[in-house]
Amino acid sequence: MKAEILTIGDEILIGQITNTNSVWIARQLNMAGIRVIHMASVADDKEAIITAFENAQKRADLVLITGGLGPTKDDITKKIFADYFKSPLIINAEVLNDVTRFFTKRNREISEINKKQALVPEGCTVIRNLNGTAPGMWMKKDKTIFISMPGVPYEMKAMVTDFILPKIKSENTLPHIYHKTVLTQGIGESTLSEIIEKWEDNLASKNIKLAYLPQPGIVRLRLSIYGTDEQKIKKAVEEEIQTLIPLIEKYVYGFENYGEETVTLEQTVSELLRKNNKTIALAESCTGGYISSLFTAIPGASEIFKGCIVPYTNKAKHELLKVDENLFTTVGSVSKECVEQLAQNVLKIFDSDYAIAVSGIAGPGGATAEKPVGLVWIAVAKKEKVYSAQFLFGENRQRNIVMTANAALNQLRKCILKTLH
Amino acid sequence: MKAEILTIGDEILIGQITNTNSVWIARQLNMAGIRVIHMASVADDKEAIITAFENAQKRADLVLITGGLGPTKDDITKKIFADYFKSPLIINAEVLNDVTRFFTKRNREISEINKKQALVPEGCTVIRNLNGTAPGMWMKKDKTIFISMPGVPYEMKAMVTDFILPKIKSENTLPHIYHKTVLTQGIGESTLSEIIEKWEDNLASKNIKLAYLPQPGIVRLRLSIYGTDEQKIKKAVEEEIQTLIPLIEKYVYGFENYGEETVTLEQTVSELLRKNNKTIALAESCTGGYISSLFTAIPGASEIFKGCIVPYTNKAKHELLKVDENLFTTVGSVSKECVEQLAQNVLKIFDSDYAIAVSGIAGPGGATAEKPVGLVWIAVAKKEKVYSAQFLFGENRQRNIVMTANAALNQLRKCILKTLH
Repeated sequence: MKAEILTIGDEILIGQITNTNSVWIARQLNMAGIRVIHMASVADDKEAIITAFENAQKRADLVLITGGLGPTKDDITKKIFADYFKSPLIINAEVLNDVTRFFTKRNREISEINKKQALVPEGCTVIRNLNGTAPGMWMKKDKTIFISMPGVPYEMKAMVTDFILPKIKSENTLPHIYHKTVLTQGIGESTLSEIIEKWEDNLASKNIKLAYLPQPGIVRLRLSIYGTDEQKIKKAVEEEIQTLIPLIEKYVYGFENYGEETVTLEQTVSELLRKNNKTIALAESCTGGYISSLFTAIPGASEIFKGCIVPYTNKAKHELLKVDENLFTTVGSVSKECVEQLAQNVLKIFDSDYAIAVSGIAGPGGATAEKPVGLVWIAVAKKEKVYSAQFLFGENRQRNIVMTANAALNQLRKCILKTLH
Repeated sequence: MKAEILTIGDEILIGQITNTNSVWIARQLNMAGIRVIHMASVADDKEAIITAFENAQKRADLVLITGGLGPTKDDITKKIFADYFKSPLIINAEVLNDVTRFFTKRNREISEINKKQALVPEGCTVIRNLNGTAPGMWMKKDKTIFISMPGVPYEMKAMVTDFILPKIKSENTLPHIYHKTVLTQGIGESTLSEIIEKWEDNLASKNIKLAYLPQPGIVRLRLSIYGTDEQKIKKAVEEEIQTLIPLIEKYVYGFENYGEETVTLEQTVSELLRKNNKTIALAESCTGGYISSLFTAIPGASEIFKGCIVPYTNKAKHELLKVDENLFTTVGSVSKECVEQLAQNVLKIFDSDYAIAVSGIAGPGGATAEKPVGLVWIAVAKKEKVYSAQFLFGENRQRNIVMTANAALNQLRKCILKTLH
C-alpha cells in the first residue's frame, strides 16, 4: 500500500510553522507497513489543492490530508474536498451532536459558523473528533482513499490512532513489520556507534535496519525489519537486542516495543515509583521547575509526586531549604555540598521517599573562571543516603536544561533500582 | 516570482527526521518577496525525483532542491539532475580544489569517492560549499531556475544566504511583502472570527490576507500583503491593525513584526518585569512547575525570577505556603480563597513584587460533582492587592496545563500594566 501525505495551509508555505504533522503521520504509516512515497504542502488555494489531489490520486492508494478545516474563511479544504468528489455538503446529525456537546460542555453557545462544522460531503465516512469541532472525512475515488483531517496535531493524532489505522489494517493485508527501540541515556551518538560498530556491521546480513534517534542526553536505537513471517522477524530482532545489551548495559534505561508510543525517562521513573509505592520531591535550581513539569504532565502524578521548590536565589536556598549559608562564599551554590543539602532537606520538607536536587550554570551568563556554562551538580537522596555527581553539558541554555533533567531522572532510576553508587 | 521547495531523502518519508530545511527556506524566500507555492518531499528514487522536477517546472520559476548529494550510493540526486538537463557530469577544477582543501585541513586523505563530489553538470553555475564537500548547482531549463543543494542544514543555509538570494535579488525585480501578526490570549478562534467578521470582510478589497494561527489558549492573527510600493503596503496593514485593536483590545498581548521570530507570552511578561525592574515568584499546583520552567528557559531569568513552590499536596499548601487548613474541608484547594492565599503568601516568602498562583483539576482524574476536569483558579498578587479568576478549560491534561499557563501569564501582564480588575 502506497501513501501520500498532503498538508494544506498558507502558514506552512510562508515558513511560519514547521510541519510536524507529516513526520508524525509518516512514522505511524511506516510502523503499520504502509510505504509513504510522497509528501506535499500547498497553500489555501483552490487550484493548488485540486492539482495536489489529482497528482496524489495518480500515485497513491491512500492520501492523508491535514489542515484547512477550521470554521474561518481562510479554511477552504472541505468545500474543495466535496467538489472533488462531486458530493454536496450535507449536515451530519452525529457531528452536529458532537459539535453542540463540545460547546455545551464549555458553557458556550454554539454559533452559526460552528454549526457549519457539521457539514460533510454526502457519502463520506465521518471520523468523529472528540477533541475539537472539525470532523475527519474518509472518501474513496476509484482505488484511492482520501482522508481529510484537521491540522491541529492532537485532534489529527487521535483520528489516525483510534480510527484510521485500525480501519485500514482490518481492510488490508499489510506486510509484517517489527520494530524495537533500545533507550539509552548518558552516552553520545558517535561514542555509542564506536562501541557497537561490529555488532552493527552484522545487521545487514539479517535484513535488520538500525537507526540512531538522538535527543538531548538521550539516544534511541531503533531496530526494524520487514517480512512475511511475523514470528521469525520478531525473533531475529529480539536475538540481536540480546547481543547488544551487554555492550551498552549501563546506558540502557528501557525499551520501546513495536506500536507503542515513545517511553520517556519521566514515564519510566514515575512507573517505577508507583510500582514501589514511593514518592518524590524536588529542589530545582538551574532547571527552574522543568523536571517537576515533566513528572506532573503525566496523568496520576499526585500518587508519586509530592512537590518541588525552585530556589532561584541563594537566599531562597538558605531560607526555604536550609542550605548552610557559608557554602555560598566557600564552594558556591553549584557544588556537591549544596546539591546534597538541597536533596536531603527537600526530602524532609515534603516527607518523600526520594528527592532530586540540581544546581548548575545553564548559561549563557553566570560562568566563572572555575565553573563554565554547562557545569551541573545533581544529587539524588533517599532517607538513608544521598548520592551526587558532576556533569559538564554544552553551551545552549535550553539544551542544558533538558540534558540535566534526563541525567537527573536516570540517576533517580538507578537509585530506585539500587544500581547507583 | 513563484518558488517550489523540494526535499529529497528516504529519512523524511519514513518519518525519521522532521523536515526543518523547508520551513527555513520558505521563511527566507518570503522575506525576499518570493512566493512559495508548493513544497514536496520524495524518496531517493529516480522516477519520483524526475516527476517532481517535471511538476515543479510546470508551476514554478524557481525550484530549490535539498538532499541526496552525499558521496554514498543511496544519494542519486546529482546524477538525475544532470540527466534532467541532458548535461554530462564533468570535473570542476574549483570544486575539486575546495574538496581537496576540505580534507587536507582535517588531516584526512581524499578518497576516490570524495573526488567525485567535484563532478557537476556541464554548463551549471557552481555554488561553492565552504562547510562541506557537496557543491550546490544552479541550472536553468526554459524559464525555470533549478538549484540543487546538500541537505545538511548549515551547508544549505550558507548557500542560500551568501549566494542564492543575493544573485536572485540582483537579477530580478521582486515585489515587496509585509506581514504583521497580532497576538491574542483568552479567546477562541471562532469567537474571535465572529467579533471581527465585518472588519475581516473588508480586507480582501485592500489585498490583505488574514490567517488565524491557534495554539492552546492563544490565537495569532497574521495580516499579510504583497505590493510594489513598500511604504504603501506597510501603511495599509498598519491602518487595518489600528482598526482591529479596539475590537479585541482586552485579548491582545503583543505583536510580531515582519521578519521577527514568534514572541511568546512568557517573553512578553519577562520583558515587562525587566523593564519595570520587578520580580516574580510562583505557587503552582496543577501546572506542576510548568510556568516556572517557561520563565527560567529564557536567558537572564535570574534578574526577574525569584523562585517557585509546587505544593502538590494539601499538606504542602498548608505547611509551606500557610494556606488555612480549614479551607480544604470547606471550599477545597481548587478555590478562590486557596489561590489568593497561595499568591499572597508566596509573594511574601520570596519577597517578590508579583506572584502567580494556580490550582485546578488538570485531569483526567480528580473531578468532583461541582468541580469538573478543566476547572482552574488563577490568582495574581502584588504587594497591595490580589486578583483572582476562575477558568474552565478542556479535558486534555497537557492542554489544560498549557492553557492555564497562558492565562496566568496574561493575567500577570495585565496586572503589571494595571489593566486587571
